[in-house]
Amino acid sequence: MINKLVDKIKKTNAPIVVGLDPMLSYVPEHITKKAFDELGETPAGAAEAIWQYNKAIVDATYDLIPAVKPQIAMYEQFGVEGLKTFQKTVDYCHEKDLVVIGDVKRGDIGSTSAAYATGHLGKVQIGSKSYSTFDEDFATVNPYLGTDGIKPFVDVCKEEKKGIFILVKTSNPSSGEFQDRMIDGRPLYEWVGEKVAEWGADCMGDSYSYVGAVVGATYPEQGKILRKVMPKSFILVPGYGAQGGKGADLVHFFNEDGLGAIVNSSRGIICAYKQDKYKDMGITAENFADASRKAVEDMIEDISGALANR
Amino acid sequence: MINKLVDKIKKTNAPIVVGLDPMLSYVPEHITKKAFDELGETPAGAAEAIWQYNKAIVDATYDLIPAVKPQIAMYEQFGVEGLKTFQKTVDYCHEKDLVVIGDVKRGDIGSTSAAYATGHLGKVQIGSKSYSTFDEDFATVNPYLGTDGIKPFVDVCKEEKKGIFILVKTSNPSSGEFQDRMIDGRPLYEWVGEKVAEWGADCMGDSYSYVGAVVGATYPEQGKILRKVMPKSFILVPGYGAQGGKGADLVHFFNEDGLGAIVNSSRGIICAYKQDKYKDMGITAENFADASRKAVEDMIEDISGALANR
Repeated sequence: MINKLVDKIKKTNAPIVVGLDPMLSYVPEHITKKAFDELGETPAGAAEAIWQYNKAIVDATYDLIPAVKPQIAMYEQFGVEGLKTFQKTVDYCHEKDLVVIGDVKRGDIGSTSAAYATGHLGKVQIGSKSYSTFDEDFATVNPYLGTDGIKPFVDVCKEEKKGIFILVKTSNPSSGEFQDRMIDGRPLYEWVGEKVAEWGADCMGDSYSYVGAVVGATYPEQGKILRKVMPKSFILVPGYGAQGGKGADLVHFFNEDGLGAIVNSSRGIICAYKQDKYKDMGITAENFADASRKAVEDMIEDISGALANR
Repeated sequence: MINKLVDKIKKTNAPIVVGLDPMLSYVPEHITKKAFDELGETPAGAAEAIWQYNKAIVDATYDLIPAVKPQIAMYEQFGVEGLKTFQKTVDYCHEKDLVVIGDVKRGDIGSTSAAYATGHLGKVQIGSKSYSTFDEDFATVNPYLGTDGIKPFVDVCKEEKKGIFILVKTSNPSSGEFQDRMIDGRPLYEWVGEKVAEWGADCMGDSYSYVGAVVGATYPEQGKILRKVMPKSFILVPGYGAQGGKGADLVHFFNEDGLGAIVNSSRGIICAYKQDKYKDMGITAENFADASRKAVEDMIEDISGALANR
């Protein structure tokens, strides 16, 4: 799957991923109204509204991008109905040949971590049959529990040719509370980064490992260091746009081959229709997905431009 | 909810929690056969088998215990159908007046963390209505992302009078890889423990905080230190039984009032019927839940005995 991701990035010339993190407040009123008219102001109604919203955004952008990153929390808050929409979204993105990064940030140990890996990346055995359940291509994973938490994911990745992105240095303001603490002269995130390289060393695709890392766009200096610590790991970079990251800040997350990183934008794309910039172009809530397409084009230009000029 | 947990521990004299972490291989054949006959070897069939298994164990033990801890990964691996059983299990345990600790180990930032908190502990707003979705009483949370990840949970806890247990020192062999690393002369888990005490300070129940910690039974020395670092935090202690922890090792997780900790056992209770000890008492797969009841009684005796003898 890391090979597919690399191929698609090369084909689209777009090292970006669209974060499908829908808040109900993002969804234009004509969509929520229709869903609530049909299903009521219920979890099923909310899930239907989000599904229609996602579908329109995917339809408007899928030919420009290699991958999407649905954030499961936004679905999980609506319970089982929300998770049905999560699954429908993953399946629909696969129909559109997109790589799906499940932003699930799971992390546990032993058989429990194996169960998460099975549910999100693998196949669950039921009697004589086996099923792919949520079936993302990549999942994000939390490293706090150490190798016992990561190994079961790596095992499933090897078997299924799928991948993970391990949290190393997150994009939020307080990420330094623990991640920046100095241990033997180096911050914790560097030690985690070294482990990522180690965990990924024996499950390599053609040029990059199945085991990648998450490093926030908001920390470009750390990204520069971590790029060197984990040369064969793809870096998933959240925090672009709404959280403050800009294309020019991100060049050091990439290797010399112009690969090795994929930058996520969520609100900046899926909620683009609320920005003055796109409103001024005549976009309204009715054709919100056109704004998302334009925002993807602008993001590609920003990042590709920065990479070309480095 | 921390007050309810304390009350129920006092009433049952049982500072224990039953981990409802069902593997399909734990479920006796007569249950899986019936479920598969009805629903096929499908996720729905597996989910039905697990539901019947859980229900029998809860029915056999609920009067002896204050709380249960369903491990969501074991349900999530079966996708949406599995999560329906998770929800049914939570609801059924509430009918039996049990405190439900959702072992979800979620952790993200900002609005994403808020969505997890909403989905598991709070109420989600949909138009003019609001809904409790998974509706556990406590959830486990990962601290790697710092305050930005924890604060949204604390906010919901304050509003709903619910609680969280934050991973501090986990029970697994490799937990030391990051958690034991020394920072300014003290291991990372102590720094995390200090933060737990800080986060919990302004959301107190009568005697304990809504914000607790997870510290593995397999690390009694660390438990002794962390007990002092977080005097007002309840400690959820996994790793008893199958992972090697014993009652006598656990006394230092408790405060002088005999409270402050709750010890989890999962496999040792739900899968007791497979142990020679209970087989020798004439228990078979048919009356597997009787073994679970006996295992709960034995665990209470072990821990209460150790507390009485300290």
